[in-house]
Order: sequence, then C-alpha cells, then structure tokens
Amino acid sequence: MEDVKVIKIGGNVVDNPYALDTFLSDFASAAGAKILVHGGGKVASTIGRELGIEPKMIDGRRVTDADTLRVVTMVYGGLINKNIVASLQRMGCNAVGFTGVDGAMVRSRRRSAAPVDFGEVGDPISVNANLLFTMIGGGFVPIIAPLTIGESGEILNTNADTMAQSIAVALARRARVELCYTFELAGVLDKSGAIIERITTASAAKLAAAGTISGGMLPKIENALKAVSSGVKQVNIGQTIITA
Amino acid sequence: MEDVKVIKIGGNVVDNPYALDTFLSDFASAAGAKILVHGGGKVASTIGRELGIEPKMIDGRRVTDADTLRVVTMVYGGLINKNIVASLQRMGCNAVGFTGVDGAMVRSRRRSAAPVDFGEVGDPISVNANLLFTMIGGGFVPIIAPLTIGESGEILNTNADTMAQSIAVALARRARVELCYTFELAGVLDKSGAIIERITTASAAKLAAAGTISGGMLPKIENALKAVSSGVKQVNIGQTIITA
Repeated sequence: MEDVKVIKIGGNVVDNPYALDTFLSDFASAAGAKILVHGGGKVASTIGRELGIEPKMIDGRRVTDADTLRVVTMVYGGLINKNIVASLQRMGCNAVGFTGVDGAMVRSRRRSAAPVDFGEVGDPISVNANLLFTMIGGGFVPIIAPLTIGESGEILNTNADTMAQSIAVALARRARVELCYTFELAGVLDKSGAIIERITTASAAKLAAAGTISGGMLPKIENALKAVSSGVKQVNIGQTIITA
Repeated sequence: MEDVKVIKIGGNVVDNPYALDTFLSDFASAAGAKILVHGGGKVASTIGRELGIEPKMIDGRRVTDADTLRVVTMVYGGLINKNIVASLQRMGCNAVGFTGVDGAMVRSRRRSAAPVDFGEVGDPISVNANLLFTMIGGGFVPIIAPLTIGESGEILNTNADTMAQSIAVALARRARVELCYTFELAGVLDKSGAIIERITTASAAKLAAAGTISGGMLPKIENALKAVSSGVKQVNIGQTIITA
C-alpha cells in the first residue's frame, strides 16, 4: 500500500504571497505521493468586488449566487490554481491542476436551501479516486480547487476543508493516507496556549466536555475524527496529530 | 498505433451558446480518443472590460499585459474550460480540463518585443505528450485552454490554433492524428464560393499563385501544411481536407 499525503491550505496561506511561496517550496521538496487542496481566500471577494459583486457571508461561509459562481470558477479553477501550478513547476514539482468537476472527480449534493440558502454550493457525496491514482501513478502532483459537480452536472462551490477530507477518505481505500490542514496557529491549543500533541476519539470527548476545545475548533476536530474513523491514518491540524 | 482526433474550436463556437452546445454534443458522441483545444473568444474581452481593462488588439491578436494575463488565466483556464468540462460530463463524456501549464505540457518562448510587443505571449517550442497519453489511456478526454509555460516558468497567453497544431504534431510521434479546425465557413472556398475538397503541398502553391487562396487563409493553410509535413495524417479546415 502506498503512502499519500493530502494537504489543504486556506486563506492564511493563499492570501499571503510570502507564506504561499514558503509553503509551496516545502511542498515541492516533500518526498512521496502528495496532493494539494487549496481554498480561495480573499482573492475571490476582491475580484468579485471589482466586477461589482459584493461578497455575502453567513456564519463565515460564502453565499454563492450565479454571478459569484462565475467568479469562483474563474478565481479558484483558473487564477489561483494555475498560478500555484506554475510556481510548483518552477520549483521542479510536476504539478497538474484540477477541480472536482474534472473527470467528475468529486460529486456533490446541492445544499438544502433551508435553514440557510447558500446558493450554488454542494457538499461532497462521492469521490472517484481513479483520476488521482492515474495522475500519481504517472508521477504527477494533483493540485485541486474546491469546485465540485452536482447531481444535475452543474458546477458547485464547495468548502475546501470538506473537499480535502472526502478526497483523503476515498484515497484511503487503496493507500495509507495522511491528511494535513495548515492552520493559523501552531496547532490545537489548550487553555494555557500549549499545543495539544495528540487527540483521539476518546480524548476529544473529554477535551470538549472540559471546554478545552470549543467554538469553531469543534467542527474541525469532528471532521478530522470522521476522517480517521473512515480509514485515514492520521490528520494533522498544525502540529496536533489526530488518530482514531 | 492508435487514432487520436485533435479538435480546435474558436470564438465562432465558444461565443455562441447554441453553437457550443451543438458542437459539444457532437464531440461527446464521437467515437475514439479525442482532445479538444478551445480559444477564449470574446468572453475574456467582456470580463476584462468589467474589470476596467480595455482589450488591446494588434493585427487581430490580443496584447497581453500583466492585468490581461490575469484575466485570460481566469477566463480561459477557469470559466470557459470548467464550463465546457461540466457540459461534457452532463453528456456522458469523461472530460478533464487542462492548460499547457499543467504538467508543463506545452512549453513556449516569450514572443520577441520587436517588431510588435504582444506582452505576456508565448509561442510553443515543445509539447510533453505524456500527460495526454496518460489521460487518454485512462479513458479521459482532455480539454485544453490556450495557456502555456514560458522558459522562466511563467504563464503565457498562446494562440489556440498554434497550440492545437503543436499538440497534434507531438501526438503524431506515437499515434495517427487528425487535426480539425472548426471554421465560420463550410471550408476553404474557391473564387466561386465552392468548397475546395482537398489541398496538398503541391496544390496549395498553385492555388496561392492563382490568387485562389489569399489573405488570412494563407497562414492557416501554411500552418496546416506544416502539421501534415510533421507527421499529422490530415488537417480538416471545415470540410476541406489538407494532406501532405
């Protein structure tokens, strides 16, 4: 069974040219099979605004109307994805860019309009890992933008954290997979600000009950636990390691 | 040796939703290995204008300054490419989108700034057909946007006709390749408006000397003759067939 690393970068990396360059340089030199999933950061909002489309957010998540879908298709699938690919190629890493639409790699279900209508947004329901294994087998490094294909074959905007998790779980059927989330902090921190080195299903329940993990960290940890209970070997959130 | 069709569509198809849908439906149902190269049409100009970037053209070719490069990277690599891929997926065709930057598939040389400075524009110098053969071998259908990677690893804007020709020539080393250009007319026409059914290197010289082929048609025919003299089996311009 081969080892594959799935690494997800978000706005804290994508929006900062220096952080992005440093990250890509490390990524390019990492040994073994690897896949990068990138979010869109603030670039989509900036370009949307230039096009007269004011970003709408609810609970920190983007509302994707038809015009915004055009913007994220351009920015995630085109601008950000191809610039990351070009940077990695300059660094000697044989990157190839994709979205979940390509090869219908990530199929999603349009999110219900109730209680909140997020518009053209889908949550992954299945991942066809063939395209990824074909690429890895050919010596290529897949770079994936968070767009998926809905049940009517439409393009849908998708949360990059969930996208990375679904891809990691699908690959885990045929490979030993490590899923890494870059994070604005050094890792999951306890109340004193120290990094929690390891979290398991059992310890997570205790940490949540004691209030050590709370707020926005809870869904991140739940997401990670779901991955490790679905065959992913381990999830890294910064320096925190999460296992089953 | 396997048969591969390389088909190039330009603005006359990309800019017209009905023509595009009809073309894609035919393309989806065509048997055998196939690759689509698409131009950008007027969409890049429209979106550029919305972003306050007025298109500059010299001799019918776009001048690509840094801002325009961002626009074409978004529009060609993102918006147009991913919408074509989604349409084909709906039609049951397992399309996967690429640019020449992905897998450094098409390397180009920045066009000299003299006599005309076209900016961030490159002409293909080499095509790595491995990615394409890997995809075709996996049952995928590559859909290619006209962006290439320059000698310093930068993204460059590239003429889609030339891109299709370079790809066809590279594939011809390992496959029997037919290169098809869709065209606003039914084919190459003689002075009476009748379609010239077949053109060869020998007949092209006579047609040019007699003034039957002239103007913008001459470089198109020259381009086609170069392809067939470099191993491509035949080139179709509309219904006109060009062979060595």
